[in-house]
Amino acid sequence: MSAHGGARSASSVAPQPFFRSRWVPAPAHVRELAPDAGLPAGFRAAGVAAGLKASGDPDVGLLVCDAPEPVSAARFSATSAPAAPVLVSRERCRLNALRVVLANAGCANAATGRRGLDDAAKTQGAAATAAGVDPSEVVLASTGAISHYLPVDAVVKGILQARSQLRENGDAEFQRAIQTTDAFEKRANLEVGLASGPVRLSAQCKGAGMISPRFATMLCFLQTDAALAAETADLLLGVCVKRSFDRASVDGQLSTNDTAVLMCSGSSGVSVAAESEDELLLGEALDALLRQLAILMVADGEGARRIARVAVRGGHPETVEVAARAVANSPLVKAALHGGDPNWGRIVQAVGGALAGGGLGHPPLAVDVAIEGMQVCSAGAAIPYDEQALAQAVRREEVEYEIGLPGEGAETEVFFSDLSHEYVTINADYTT
Amino acid sequence: MSAHGGARSASSVAPQPFFRSRWVPAPAHVRELAPDAGLPAGFRAAGVAAGLKASGDPDVGLLVCDAPEPVSAARFSATSAPAAPVLVSRERCRLNALRVVLANAGCANAATGRRGLDDAAKTQGAAATAAGVDPSEVVLASTGAISHYLPVDAVVKGILQARSQLRENGDAEFQRAIQTTDAFEKRANLEVGLASGPVRLSAQCKGAGMISPRFATMLCFLQTDAALAAETADLLLGVCVKRSFDRASVDGQLSTNDTAVLMCSGSSGVSVAAESEDELLLGEALDALLRQLAILMVADGEGARRIARVAVRGGHPETVEVAARAVANSPLVKAALHGGDPNWGRIVQAVGGALAGGGLGHPPLAVDVAIEGMQVCSAGAAIPYDEQALAQAVRREEVEYEIGLPGEGAETEVFFSDLSHEYVTINADYTT
Repeated sequence: MSAHGGARSASSVAPQPFFRSRWVPAPAHVRELAPDAGLPAGFRAAGVAAGLKASGDPDVGLLVCDAPEPVSAARFSATSAPAAPVLVSRERCRLNALRVVLANAGCANAATGRRGLDDAAKTQGAAATAAGVDPSEVVLASTGAISHYLPVDAVVKGILQARSQLRENGDAEFQRAIQTTDAFEKRANLEVGLASGPVRLSAQCKGAGMISPRFATMLCFLQTDAALAAETADLLLGVCVKRSFDRASVDGQLSTNDTAVLMCSGSSGVSVAAESEDELLLGEALDALLRQLAILMVADGEGARRIARVAVRGGHPETVEVAARAVANSPLVKAALHGGDPNWGRIVQAVGGALAGGGLGHPPLAVDVAIEGMQVCSAGAAIPYDEQALAQAVRREEVEYEIGLPGEGAETEVFFSDLSHEYVTINADYTT
Repeated sequence: MSAHGGARSASSVAPQPFFRSRWVPAPAHVRELAPDAGLPAGFRAAGVAAGLKASGDPDVGLLVCDAPEPVSAARFSATSAPAAPVLVSRERCRLNALRVVLANAGCANAATGRRGLDDAAKTQGAAATAAGVDPSEVVLASTGAISHYLPVDAVVKGILQARSQLRENGDAEFQRAIQTTDAFEKRANLEVGLASGPVRLSAQCKGAGMISPRFATMLCFLQTDAALAAETADLLLGVCVKRSFDRASVDGQLSTNDTAVLMCSGSSGVSVAAESEDELLLGEALDALLRQLAILMVADGEGARRIARVAVRGGHPETVEVAARAVANSPLVKAALHGGDPNWGRIVQAVGGALAGGGLGHPPLAVDVAIEGMQVCSAGAAIPYDEQALAQAVRREEVEYEIGLPGEGAETEVFFSDLSHEYVTINADYTT
């Protein structure tokens, strides 16, 4: 397993620091707490085994905010084939005032039509009753097999069981209940030093496309005891998701179920005003947290030997975006990354192919390529470089590609994983 | 190896018919000739080993049309990073009156800048001198490693050697000279019964993305002894390329070097007038030839266990195209195809992801899915089907997916291969 991965059991080996990528330095005002530090004030969680996973592992998670006036924000998959929990959450929830998360693994409740919506609504109602809130305050999230119907009775039983186990340090069990084939947990408990005082920020996150027998659904639940206006929560979550989960690709496959939810209890008594220094500080913490989580998702999977960052600069926002995605999703670039092969011709090919349309009269694209700071291609043509140094550099755990397109002013990045034998094994040899 | 593949040596086993896919029935007026039937009248070819391939196999191919007024048409990669031979051919050739093809394997002459253009022009000049034609009548095609410079002296020596070996049945050696890691040859000699009399049609084609240590460059050279106006040749090639090579995807990676050239000697004395029945008959033959060649390219590679056709119908040409490409290039769909897994949820996911943008207020996509004629999903929701029959069907050699999107009037198809361990092995473990 890549050194990016954590241990399956945090107690068996010395825990790795959460901020472990060179691409995400921990902000100075952010302190990592112990894995068992518990949730921010105002939150309780639980995870129970309700029989959705054949393994008997926890598969129904419940997370409750007990604060009188919680504030929240949410983001969902942009797919045009959203799963039932996404549709129900988007259309029936007060997304800026959520009190409860009901999450399950083992069934995505996707491609299930009208019945899937009814099933989702039933579980939403059951969770609302169990927590004593309105159904519109319960956000739903599911991950697992597409095209299977949700076992509603089992989920409802799980909800009742989970209610009796809700506790402030239930985040570890909640985390287990949202994982599918994640090789390591993606969970953090942070303390953030704001100007107005310290606040807590926690995350439970799931996503492991490289080894998922289905596909790369990502779920992320975030809690803070800071007090935020709904607009501030929405702004911070929106900006940080764009810079993290939106910039990660395991296999270029957008899920039917992606969901990210930020909940703010306000229980710390520390208020974060809009456009204040504290908003900036909390935003920096949330940004680092989500970027590291995105990188952990990319790094997950027994097959993920290496991860990479491709940064593209040029004159047009759309062009740099298309080029970066093309490199990140090219099976040839990803296979070379896996093999530790400095085969940069594939980068030129991927960029050229993605920006296709250069017909007669169009000059060839003047693309620059640098790998780990070593320039190998200038204006579309090979230049001399230290082949031995490059060969060494691409065998490290993290590899950085920088691509220059004509023009200036636009810049983007995408984090991606390699293409491994295990990806094929798990996704080919698994049968529904 | 898949039964789609031919034998490496045609003499050692009974040859397979060229038309071997259920998706390309041979037209009634097309007859397959023996592999050694030779080129159409007016053409000679040769392939020689010039040292570009480390294996010592043939790597420089020369094909000459001896007719007094040959007619031709050509198509090239739409990449914005075209290789030097593509740029030189596009910009310096009389593409409607080509007399000579100079092709090489072992070096793509791509990402080689100004020097690459000069190198290509030198070999074009050498081939022109050798064949006694103008350089503008020599089309160039290269395939192999990107970012390496063309060994001009070796190519020029190869040209001189090839000139002395030009013969009417030199197409087999020419074919060998354009192959890289193709597992089987993609070559055909056909007789086409036109209303005005029989004509010959031959093809030599290269492309094997699944096993290419670089990427899926495709080259295709076509010869007929029919007499066509340049506009007719261009129309026929353009339409047939759109229905064949444009509809094939091994790994979604557009090459820097793709080239297809049709040359017409007119030596049969049979003229094919525009908008005549003969144009239709020749077009049907060319169409079947190119579609079968495209499917052979998709099927090539030791890893290609299965190939598939995805057909998408709906109301918008752009939408059906995006959806078909998304399915064909989805690593999850391709891995399921490899494993013989009827995991159709991945098809819904791929289509939904490709048509992303369905936000709040957008109803989920009403997508229908059928596999091998069995409908499994109606209007986005699972429906009952015979699971055993489906499991059997997806384990065959060719698998067909039909996708219905809302609306009517637009339809497209893409042929694609599976994602195999060998793809990863060859593309990851090969080092420059």
